[in-house]
Amino acid sequence: MTVLKNDRFLRALLKQPVDVTPVWMMRQAGRYLPEYRATRARAGDFMQLCKSPELACEVTLQPLERYPLDAAILFSDILTIPDAMGLGLYFEPGEGPRFRKPVRSRADIDALPVPDPEADLGYVMAAVRTIRRELNGRVPLIGFSGSPWTLATYMLEGGSSRDFRRSKVMLYEQPEALHALLDKLARAVTAYLNAQIRAGAQAVQIFDTWGGSLSDVAYQAFSLAYMRQIVAGLIAGPEGHPVPVILFTKNGGQWLEVMADSGASALGLDWTCDIGQARTRVGDRVALQGNMDPTVLYASPAVIRAEVARILASYGPGSGHVFNLGHGITPEVDPAHAGAFIDAVHELSAPYHASR
Amino acid sequence: MTVLKNDRFLRALLKQPVDVTPVWMMRQAGRYLPEYRATRARAGDFMQLCKSPELACEVTLQPLERYPLDAAILFSDILTIPDAMGLGLYFEPGEGPRFRKPVRSRADIDALPVPDPEADLGYVMAAVRTIRRELNGRVPLIGFSGSPWTLATYMLEGGSSRDFRRSKVMLYEQPEALHALLDKLARAVTAYLNAQIRAGAQAVQIFDTWGGSLSDVAYQAFSLAYMRQIVAGLIAGPEGHPVPVILFTKNGGQWLEVMADSGASALGLDWTCDIGQARTRVGDRVALQGNMDPTVLYASPAVIRAEVARILASYGPGSGHVFNLGHGITPEVDPAHAGAFIDAVHELSAPYHASR
Repeated sequence: MTVLKNDRFLRALLKQPVDVTPVWMMRQAGRYLPEYRATRARAGDFMQLCKSPELACEVTLQPLERYPLDAAILFSDILTIPDAMGLGLYFEPGEGPRFRKPVRSRADIDALPVPDPEADLGYVMAAVRTIRRELNGRVPLIGFSGSPWTLATYMLEGGSSRDFRRSKVMLYEQPEALHALLDKLARAVTAYLNAQIRAGAQAVQIFDTWGGSLSDVAYQAFSLAYMRQIVAGLIAGPEGHPVPVILFTKNGGQWLEVMADSGASALGLDWTCDIGQARTRVGDRVALQGNMDPTVLYASPAVIRAEVARILASYGPGSGHVFNLGHGITPEVDPAHAGAFIDAVHELSAPYHASR
Repeated sequence: MTVLKNDRFLRALLKQPVDVTPVWMMRQAGRYLPEYRATRARAGDFMQLCKSPELACEVTLQPLERYPLDAAILFSDILTIPDAMGLGLYFEPGEGPRFRKPVRSRADIDALPVPDPEADLGYVMAAVRTIRRELNGRVPLIGFSGSPWTLATYMLEGGSSRDFRRSKVMLYEQPEALHALLDKLARAVTAYLNAQIRAGAQAVQIFDTWGGSLSDVAYQAFSLAYMRQIVAGLIAGPEGHPVPVILFTKNGGQWLEVMADSGASALGLDWTCDIGQARTRVGDRVALQGNMDPTVLYASPAVIRAEVARILASYGPGSGHVFNLGHGITPEVDPAHAGAFIDAVHELSAPYHASR
């Protein structure tokens, strides 16, 4: 395998010394970039873009051409697994993801297959291999999956939801049915992430976008427990290196202590947490990733720089911090502002690593 | 004034002994009740219902006719103050609230009047007086307002928002302009709540629906600081009794310690908090209100009862707990399920108050 030229991101996840704080952006390959919009237009619809390894590779690399990012993230969708289970994923313009065959009953759950990643999601593994080859060791590649609870909400609601009514009624009325679904999804996600690791993903992130909609006890039983199961089932990389896992539960700031005991290497933070307080709460158990409010990117470069400085100061000296936004970058952001953000992280973080 | 026949709610807010845990529901006068839908149909549109003291009184009392609730809450809208400032509130069917003249600049902010509650919002005070008279001491009446930050987001965005882009750009780019708006709103809310207290409100709640969209430091500077200013400016009731204040920041579970130092009597919790842990964190400083996930009301009465039992056990023995949902009751809930919820609170909480 190629030698990794920039390993800051992996080192920070393992709390090893770094020269500056590494940075990437959730949804960095996205609609705020004109070159992304051009590739997407060529692809036709969004899923065609995901299913073409060449085009997925192209958009994955686009932000790296513009900015000195410290990681690439596989371009894909969190709903590839339910799609491979036969639910018929499609995108209604302006409406977000939808399933033609949502899961409605215990019988539906029992009938769901656990996809074979290479056979049923080969386009994702082909994208990972293509991206690794094209990256040629510039920066590490992050693989990812949705969390079981997050995937289950889309499968049960048939798409996006405001109150997750069907999912929560199942949680409260038929907890054993929901556990069966979540266990099946956890096994599918484990196999999927392990296949991504075999194909070349050097770290993986689990996006628990909707875990924060649950009560404290329900979060632990119906979301965190299955992420823990996944983490325990992940393999080492082909070279025998550990593959760090990042858990990101949006609106999960109250639960960092229990998340830190999940076996994950790092926790993703949204912007509602103070990252310095979060560091105190989790201690040495995990690294932290985050956490600037993405709407700050609408403000001027000077404001962006000040906010980066504030977050770096809150985290304080030493490794264990991967800078990121607290959620995905939004389509209307000026690409120059994203550049100002990334430069600010590198320039302003050096003093915090001076004792290296 | 009439003697209060049921003072459990006020006693619990002041952490005084009670026989059972008091309970009310946010949005208890609402669309889940057929009698509400009938009154609303008679009123025409939603604001006509708010602006008629007789109809507002009628819907306020409807849930009390059905259920043994321990408090009534004024039927009104959180956006009455911006409406009285001249922004032109209206409701687009299926779209939520909108303003004809959103606030776009510092000049707009400086031109905003601080409404005189009796002259400009007399319909609210008339509703409070009418409801107090019709309640005739059955239970206390809660007045309320939106928080300055929450009101500001609607005024700046022109309605509901997903990412509060305009509000946050002002926060980061023109903080002094936003502070001017929030200070004006805090003065308006203080006068408004004091007028409600003079008219007969026996407790008040500040709804900070969107405080949870802010970063930790921005929440403290742009939302909590102005709620603290309001609390400090509130008067005692006409009989000299203290008027307890409940602060409810949705998604504010990470910030309970600082909220507990705001001068409020109680904090409202959404369902993502464990109420027992919250009690430990705030200590004796404040009472707690909450916090069942409203979607549990879609489950069976047996499930509702089990969830009530779990929350009561988490809070533990002693006063200082007002049971509620963690957010407003939703339109599709079966009214019989709301009844099962309220009965469960009263029946299952008695043992926790046995040492009274």
